[in-house]
Amino acid sequence: MIARLAVIGVGLIGGSLARALRDAGAVDEIIGCGRSIANLERARALGVIDCFTQDPARAVRDADMVFLAVPLGAMRGAFAAIRGRLRDDAVITDGGSVKGSVVADARAVFGRIPARLVPGHPIAGTERSGVEASFPELYRDRHVILTPLPETDPDALDRVTRMWQSCGAQVASMDVTHHDRILAATSHLPHMLAFGLVDALARRRENDELFRYAAGGFRDFTRIASSDPVMWRDICLANRESLGEMLQGFSDEMQDLAAAIRRGDGDRLLAIFQRAKAARDGYVDGIRPRRPRSEPEKP
Amino acid sequence: MIARLAVIGVGLIGGSLARALRDAGAVDEIIGCGRSIANLERARALGVIDCFTQDPARAVRDADMVFLAVPLGAMRGAFAAIRGRLRDDAVITDGGSVKGSVVADARAVFGRIPARLVPGHPIAGTERSGVEASFPELYRDRHVILTPLPETDPDALDRVTRMWQSCGAQVASMDVTHHDRILAATSHLPHMLAFGLVDALARRRENDELFRYAAGGFRDFTRIASSDPVMWRDICLANRESLGEMLQGFSDEMQDLAAAIRRGDGDRLLAIFQRAKAARDGYVDGIRPRRPRSEPEKP
Repeated sequence: MIARLAVIGVGLIGGSLARALRDAGAVDEIIGCGRSIANLERARALGVIDCFTQDPARAVRDADMVFLAVPLGAMRGAFAAIRGRLRDDAVITDGGSVKGSVVADARAVFGRIPARLVPGHPIAGTERSGVEASFPELYRDRHVILTPLPETDPDALDRVTRMWQSCGAQVASMDVTHHDRILAATSHLPHMLAFGLVDALARRRENDELFRYAAGGFRDFTRIASSDPVMWRDICLANRESLGEMLQGFSDEMQDLAAAIRRGDGDRLLAIFQRAKAARDGYVDGIRPRRPRSEPEKP
Repeated sequence: MIARLAVIGVGLIGGSLARALRDAGAVDEIIGCGRSIANLERARALGVIDCFTQDPARAVRDADMVFLAVPLGAMRGAFAAIRGRLRDDAVITDGGSVKGSVVADARAVFGRIPARLVPGHPIAGTERSGVEASFPELYRDRHVILTPLPETDPDALDRVTRMWQSCGAQVASMDVTHHDRILAATSHLPHMLAFGLVDALARRRENDELFRYAAGGFRDFTRIASSDPVMWRDICLANRESLGEMLQGFSDEMQDLAAAIRRGDGDRLLAIFQRAKAARDGYVDGIRPRRPRSEPEKP
């Protein structure tokens, strides 16, 4: 049970955690903190938070659980704002899509990894932003990856694990670098392709006509290109090494495909498409029992 | 009104046309033709077709409308099989995703463009195949692009236009080459990216884990990689020039993006993502009134 939860950044991710914990009866009081007064007022009106402040230091003062749900570029500032203002027993966790940068930010601000910091990443979300987009089922049957460090207090890890479980999530634990590589492949790279494709088409002369005749597959394929540009700029900068490596691997794959098309190599194309279809069908079969609903993603 | 419709290839596309015309009361009798007896029997059992034959020449003998819904690689053979077997007033149309190759096949087989051939392409479909996947609403509020040639009989064009309109589709007309360029950009290229991405990930050592932690965005993004590999091989080969050009344009875009990530150029990344988001949001706003349902695509 969480007595007082401080949510720094009451948007889709922070708001959905608050709603889910509230629905589960797993939290007593929720204080919100953020830059936009209008968003905070809306969050209070919606019952997502009980009260709010724009000062992170005040928000965390009496909190036993602190959830940082700000863009990665604002993470270091958030750590700096709460340093020395936390209760001794307060647990800090976050929802950042890249863990290496969050850990580096914490180290830079605190001078070491705080024992009660549990870096985390819920693999859930939608392309929408703000508290209006939040909903309590966002994390149900979704993975949450925690990346505890050698310094991490087992009790803090346990508390964060239970927090996410009470939202209906499946909690896994892995190494920081491993997390960032996996997410580079399955989330950050696809976002780059979607942003890149839409931008490439938008820059063509006939772009109006292109979009007019685009079908449902295009809509699904590019949905993630409607995601928040600032959040994605920060993710790219924070995970540039792994993402760069994945971009290179993908580029090699596309060179191979383009060459097969150029030389009219139907056998090669068929082999690639068959392998991809088998992998994708297998992936969908694998998740079907767990995630029957059509649900969008967060990085 | 169509007296006797011959559907060559009773799969998702051919089956859905048959179902839609039947529901609209726009056809009297439907004869199916294909390679798989089991699929044809299933189509008859489902009421999609009234009868079937495996011989295209027999299928078209008394038909006033012939719809070719075979993979592009089988189009030339289908033309050859029906040549000289058609009624004089029979209209031929097709559902091929590349029009240049269909026109070239027709010219090769018939020695000229038949006046009553109306090349066409319904921009609708799903990643599934076979008559079981067909449904009568597939074409409702979707675009169908017809690419009539100078040789095309206006009456034949009119009949095909009305056929698709009775399925609820919006019919547009454009030049063959223009069609193939547009589809290369909005359908064929995205399919290459989805196939390429899934294949690139499937070939990585840790692929099980990658797919396990992939979220809903990945599922949507890669849905089209579950499409029929043979159909896509044929599309690539048939549209290699336009597709090659689009792949090059996309590759340039990704080089630009990768370079910005490498040098940590947040402003450049933000500009790309903002432009893409604006274009994608505008595209979705544009289609929302017309296509409220979440629907998948055919190439």
